[in-house]
Amino acid sequence: MEFTYLQKTPLYNAFSELGKRIFLPDGIFYWAGRAKKEAEIIGTIGSAFGYEKDFVDGGSSDWMPCYLTEISEYFNVSIQDVVPYVSIGGLNETREIWKDWVLKKSQLDEIKEKDLIEKLEKQITTPIITAGVTNGIFQCSSLFLNPGEFIIAPNKRWGNYDNIIKKYIGAKIKSFTFFNEQNIDLESLELAINEVVSVQEKIIIILNFPNNPTGYVPSKEEGKEIVLLLQRQQRKHNKPIVVIVDDAYEPYVYSSDSINRSIFYDLLQLEEDIIPIKLDGVTKELLMYGGRIGFITLGLKSKWVDNDQELELLKKEIENKLEGFTRATISNCNHFYQALTQKLFKEKGIDKILASRTKVKELLRERYEMINAELAKIDDPNISIDPNSGGFFLFLNLNPKKIKANEFGDHLLRKYKVGIIPMEKLDEQINGIRIAYCSIDLSKIPELIKRIKLALNDF
Amino acid sequence: MEFTYLQKTPLYNAFSELGKRIFLPDGIFYWAGRAKKEAEIIGTIGSAFGYEKDFVDGGSSDWMPCYLTEISEYFNVSIQDVVPYVSIGGLNETREIWKDWVLKKSQLDEIKEKDLIEKLEKQITTPIITAGVTNGIFQCSSLFLNPGEFIIAPNKRWGNYDNIIKKYIGAKIKSFTFFNEQNIDLESLELAINEVVSVQEKIIIILNFPNNPTGYVPSKEEGKEIVLLLQRQQRKHNKPIVVIVDDAYEPYVYSSDSINRSIFYDLLQLEEDIIPIKLDGVTKELLMYGGRIGFITLGLKSKWVDNDQELELLKKEIENKLEGFTRATISNCNHFYQALTQKLFKEKGIDKILASRTKVKELLRERYEMINAELAKIDDPNISIDPNSGGFFLFLNLNPKKIKANEFGDHLLRKYKVGIIPMEKLDEQINGIRIAYCSIDLSKIPELIKRIKLALNDF
Repeated sequence: MEFTYLQKTPLYNAFSELGKRIFLPDGIFYWAGRAKKEAEIIGTIGSAFGYEKDFVDGGSSDWMPCYLTEISEYFNVSIQDVVPYVSIGGLNETREIWKDWVLKKSQLDEIKEKDLIEKLEKQITTPIITAGVTNGIFQCSSLFLNPGEFIIAPNKRWGNYDNIIKKYIGAKIKSFTFFNEQNIDLESLELAINEVVSVQEKIIIILNFPNNPTGYVPSKEEGKEIVLLLQRQQRKHNKPIVVIVDDAYEPYVYSSDSINRSIFYDLLQLEEDIIPIKLDGVTKELLMYGGRIGFITLGLKSKWVDNDQELELLKKEIENKLEGFTRATISNCNHFYQALTQKLFKEKGIDKILASRTKVKELLRERYEMINAELAKIDDPNISIDPNSGGFFLFLNLNPKKIKANEFGDHLLRKYKVGIIPMEKLDEQINGIRIAYCSIDLSKIPELIKRIKLALNDF
Repeated sequence: MEFTYLQKTPLYNAFSELGKRIFLPDGIFYWAGRAKKEAEIIGTIGSAFGYEKDFVDGGSSDWMPCYLTEISEYFNVSIQDVVPYVSIGGLNETREIWKDWVLKKSQLDEIKEKDLIEKLEKQITTPIITAGVTNGIFQCSSLFLNPGEFIIAPNKRWGNYDNIIKKYIGAKIKSFTFFNEQNIDLESLELAINEVVSVQEKIIIILNFPNNPTGYVPSKEEGKEIVLLLQRQQRKHNKPIVVIVDDAYEPYVYSSDSINRSIFYDLLQLEEDIIPIKLDGVTKELLMYGGRIGFITLGLKSKWVDNDQELELLKKEIENKLEGFTRATISNCNHFYQALTQKLFKEKGIDKILASRTKVKELLRERYEMINAELAKIDDPNISIDPNSGGFFLFLNLNPKKIKANEFGDHLLRKYKVGIIPMEKLDEQINGIRIAYCSIDLSKIPELIKRIKLALNDF
């Protein structure tokens, strides 16, 4: 593939050496594709096929992928949904369904805002399927970051970002202080951008709302400010800003003051070279942690090309890059959970899925409200709670001069039999505990807070 | 983790910078593990849990991972086998089952060779689960190869090796000529080792029997010679030789003259620092292509440590490295197919699995015999068939002076409606077609060969 259109975009300039190098070669796929259309005898397919009756007692005369008959009783879908390879980028129908889902999650009105939806539909790529959201983060980080280069992330972030970016890729994280009191610290973000822009030709940022570990979701006002800040910075520096939007916890927002959709959509609508990449997945959204199915959706700018046709060609080129990445790391993603996702949407429908999920979300909302209310009652100058209105967690800061987080975690566990995750990274101004209320029943929250209070009193 | 024992081994010296750098941090897993044992109230788990009745109409009072009730009808296993995360290295029980399976595949006699089995059991790591065999190849290549370094592979190899090693990692492949007439070209392999040894402190080799694309499996005699060659080379150069054994097609060997087990086992028994790494998976072995479950098993040397206890500690250190890799790229592998694999072994048993698979293998063997017999009847000085006795494919070489493979493939497809994969890499001395008889019924083979013959006559 030539990457005629991709090479002219700021996206390409932002790629790492690996991102520039990787692609999916035609070879086998070209010939297999042609054989499917043109051949009577096909000897291109690298999976064993046979007439079912020839390898299963009492099997049919259908030409099938050979499978072990013993597996059948463990699922209620067709063998064809479990045994064969899926294509490298994922099942086409699942990808199309997820694209519609991404558009639906924009919260736009399908009738009144039809034109805008159509515009966005053109601007986003058809999602490529990844092995979970982590794999999407890994893939995007690798596509953009050379060893030694910077990505900007809040100081309070999922610890696995550090594994991926620092340990695996050998790149660096420029942290910004996430909060100033009860608000996002935009000055610190701006400072980080200014520092990075002085040493490299691209800005790569990763944002995650609702955030792990804090549960922070921007207020509607903050959401606007973040977008304006990025817009201002892009205009000022005239370098591409790639925003990796880690939407793992997207639907779990409990306050109507918070933004009611991913920041992806507002960034997508900007004319500037601010390139949002949406990472989401079935993991939390459809509550299938063990499914390992995620999606990468890029937001493109129409101005990069001359017309809609070129935009489609550009999308094909990007798809080839991402498929080249998948091919070289995992070949393709598992079949069953992709098929399951498809069936949920096609056979059950969005309304049923949402009704089912709302029950879970309401459970979490009740816990969220109670745990915040209970914590607010603790009158202790050595603690503070980070702003939180979504996700699975909240974060309780401890005054590092009085209480070290690891010590506190140990004490809480030994004396009060309460398990939480302490986080102590003093050089990043982090000293506190992450409480996963997603896995604590409402009835236990008062007791949990009581014990935390007792432990605090011991210090 | 300190890697006290690992750092003293030649294995560690063979690691890439990434391999030396990567590890799985304690943090979250340390606290979550302690909470499980010590806590009454657990707020460490990052998945949503609730009483089933609180999120499913008519649900039980069990404390369960929250799931969408709509998914249940698509499988006949427990929600617990589909929804939760598995641990990073894979389901422990599936890993233990696969370790037993690896030992069983050694073909050693469980009674007469009990001592040897016990010795091997000590020397191999408990398999780490990967997202398919490709992911195992990617992981191992990344663990050993820095950009610019060499791995040795036969010129006829799976094309995806090139994607992984050259395009992704930016390392190099030192090709050796696979065949000299109807035998493996050991001189060429020896030459490749000598060349690589002059520029780097480690030899990394990848071997794949039965081979894709040729179907080659060493004869028993050749198997011995390969092992002796590696032994001799290791003694001569005194540098570690890591042999990545790509056993994707392991069980599909159709000739009793060929080695009847993976070369992994003989390498494992050598005293020299020849470190075999076995990559296998459910993909072809259990005929679940879409499952994306593979395994990495390392063969260690007892002499690297002082006693069995240290050997176990060394294994833990290696496990941590591999888990660190998995965590940073895909977090963990899908649950359903790991559970399915476990159930097949535990509930159905090896005998039933093998009986079922034998039917498939016999289908393939019949095709293998017929296609070779039919091809042998073609009297054309411009073609030759590579030695083959296993796997899913065979390879027909074309005289590049008379017929170019891509042209031939195109002609065969257009005029005779036969689809195969042409491979034309003249700088690697490759010009021929791969025929995937794994997906062509026996009844169609005579017609296939007839058409190939006609196409040859056109040139």
